Amino acid sequence: MEYRFSQRVLGLKPSAIREILKNSSAPGMIPLSAGNPAPDAFPYREILDLTTELLSQTPVDALQYGATEGYGPLREHLAAYLREQHGVGGDGDDVLITSGAQQVMDLLTKSLLDEGDTVLCESPSFVGSLNTFRSYRARLRGVPMEADGIDVRALEAALREEKRAKYLYTIPNFQNPAGVCMSLEKRRQVYALCRDAGVMILEDNPYGDLRFAGEDLPSIKSFDTDGVVVYAGSFSKVVAPGMRVGYAVGPREVLQKMVVCKQGEDVHSNLWAQIVCHRMMTRYDFAAHLERLRGIYRRKSRVLLDAMTAHLAPYAAWNAPEGGLFVWCTLREDLPMLEFVQRAMDRKVCVVPGTAFLTDENEPCNAFRMNFSTPTDEQLVQGVELLGQVAREMAG
Amino acid sequence: MEYRFSQRVLGLKPSAIREILKNSSAPGMIPLSAGNPAPDAFPYREILDLTTELLSQTPVDALQYGATEGYGPLREHLAAYLREQHGVGGDGDDVLITSGAQQVMDLLTKSLLDEGDTVLCESPSFVGSLNTFRSYRARLRGVPMEADGIDVRALEAALREEKRAKYLYTIPNFQNPAGVCMSLEKRRQVYALCRDAGVMILEDNPYGDLRFAGEDLPSIKSFDTDGVVVYAGSFSKVVAPGMRVGYAVGPREVLQKMVVCKQGEDVHSNLWAQIVCHRMMTRYDFAAHLERLRGIYRRKSRVLLDAMTAHLAPYAAWNAPEGGLFVWCTLREDLPMLEFVQRAMDRKVCVVPGTAFLTDENEPCNAFRMNFSTPTDEQLVQGVELLGQVAREMAG
Repeated sequence: MEYRFSQRVLGLKPSAIREILKNSSAPGMIPLSAGNPAPDAFPYREILDLTTELLSQTPVDALQYGATEGYGPLREHLAAYLREQHGVGGDGDDVLITSGAQQVMDLLTKSLLDEGDTVLCESPSFVGSLNTFRSYRARLRGVPMEADGIDVRALEAALREEKRAKYLYTIPNFQNPAGVCMSLEKRRQVYALCRDAGVMILEDNPYGDLRFAGEDLPSIKSFDTDGVVVYAGSFSKVVAPGMRVGYAVGPREVLQKMVVCKQGEDVHSNLWAQIVCHRMMTRYDFAAHLERLRGIYRRKSRVLLDAMTAHLAPYAAWNAPEGGLFVWCTLREDLPMLEFVQRAMDRKVCVVPGTAFLTDENEPCNAFRMNFSTPTDEQLVQGVELLGQVAREMAG
Repeated sequence: MEYRFSQRVLGLKPSAIREILKNSSAPGMIPLSAGNPAPDAFPYREILDLTTELLSQTPVDALQYGATEGYGPLREHLAAYLREQHGVGGDGDDVLITSGAQQVMDLLTKSLLDEGDTVLCESPSFVGSLNTFRSYRARLRGVPMEADGIDVRALEAALREEKRAKYLYTIPNFQNPAGVCMSLEKRRQVYALCRDAGVMILEDNPYGDLRFAGEDLPSIKSFDTDGVVVYAGSFSKVVAPGMRVGYAVGPREVLQKMVVCKQGEDVHSNLWAQIVCHRMMTRYDFAAHLERLRGIYRRKSRVLLDAMTAHLAPYAAWNAPEGGLFVWCTLREDLPMLEFVQRAMDRKVCVVPGTAFLTDENEPCNAFRMNFSTPTDEQLVQGVELLGQVAREMAG
């Protein structure tokens, strides 16, 4: 049979990162390409204890159909917690539990975008989200990144020029892949510019709790008095990604449309995972748990950065991240990035080419992304040593 | 802020069933409207034991990121099991694990349909799926149902007339809501007609294992030598719906597109649930478990049907289902269905108006759907007694 696919999938490619990840799990490969939480970051005992109690005492809560909007106690707790801790969510807002934060990107896009409408995004940005936008045939307009976040002048121009812009996609904290934080000043500017242009903001904050240096900055959502911002959060980096629990906080009117779309996608999210996340936050000292995670990533980032200083300093430049899971590393101009990544792969070290994160993969970019959460300390050191060898060889 | 929603969601309404379900959980309401498995059908002990072992021995398997395609051992086991037990899946086919079977409907639609393309469907049909198709702005062409399944002549006409038809959506076993099975003869005819027209078939089989009377019939997929059929299965009715595990078996080329779409929707499905479903099938006597479920539903359907015979016989007609969870009940012409359903709701008995399952809710339909799996035996009897009172009053 000859298949007639939709226009939207004919233009889609599998995520470059996930394709590389497939290689990265080959035997002997050092996976500096992944974005997995460190295995010692998972709260094993707590999850086991909570699960045993749940499945032995009130199993129907986890096993029967649930509400599309999410598990009630988790939605209520998140609403209060995010408001108190982060100033996220006001009277006009609601909380929707999703199957990972990726589903927030999907549901908002489905609710807002007609084919050909524009999504403004940071460039580079998280390729998983860009591919979601592409799957709805969005036009992607990249806005360059600077060391303190998005280039605000370029954003102004984009808002002026893109008549069909529906929202700006931004990761203000420890941006994936660039690793930078948007300054407070820029957060205020971005909010005001988008509000005035009638363009929504999708604020993706998967790493916000993983700051291991510097001071927390208020989210863009915390300024939102006009119903402009949909905030996406996730338990993937602070509890466990295999559970697939994320959430959106945003204007009730917008979330209602997202709920209708979610009914048609997966009815509701896995209930065991929602209940465990709720109890993880309420039965244990969640702040202490987050502090433990920050300790792990502070240490692992140090291992990677020390190795980079020792082996890559002559060949590349980078900024030390204050949180998150990634370091963005820009090679010297005379060392072509794609050749470098390929040679590294031949040595069994896997990093992600920076071009994978661009709205147009053919634009120039001499950077690659490294992750410090997935590899062991030994792999971090050994991987960077091998990258140093590759650079030295190429520099001839 | 004034929101500019996509055309696709502006036309969507929340699922009528789920809206009614909200009422059905009001205190004192008798929920003949739901489609939940009976709470005593869940394999509690097995799920608890498997989970305790998993989370105490190899927790990373459940907690880390997984493959979009699904948990490998579950995919492999399903491929072999479905082939041996049901003749489902051939050399050109693959298996994709989804977040409930609802996601199969979503991903196939996303992969095949451009706006305005046609989905052929049985009328009445499962409203959850129809709403998924609507969310991609499909044109729905309903094909009437007969006592032995879809009207094949009407299907022939539809295939001839609908130039942009991409697939036929059918539930051959214990169709929701009509409760009928497609005859073997019609299964062969439907397969041949669609194949010859170059139109795919989405065969949804959530209730196939719940036959409590009569003889099993081969699936349409079992005839598929030409890569025409995507088969959707689910653990929701045979293990637990709150786990959200479904699967698709279909042509590799089509499933690859669905995988790319799934990456953008939820990355992968909850791993705990996938592993538990796999071990439920392989560590226990799964056939005996299914036989136990059939016993529960055989008995509960009997309770409902006996009550109907006692209280509704003068006012309505129905066929005794041979499996599944529903009875489709058509009122006498002089008893208007919507008034009946509303009056029943006033008496705190909740059934689903048949019009909710039509491609056009304004078409005439004097039937409603009743479920026998969710209510207790007492609720079944009491609910039908109250429906009988309503009918008697309306008949004057």
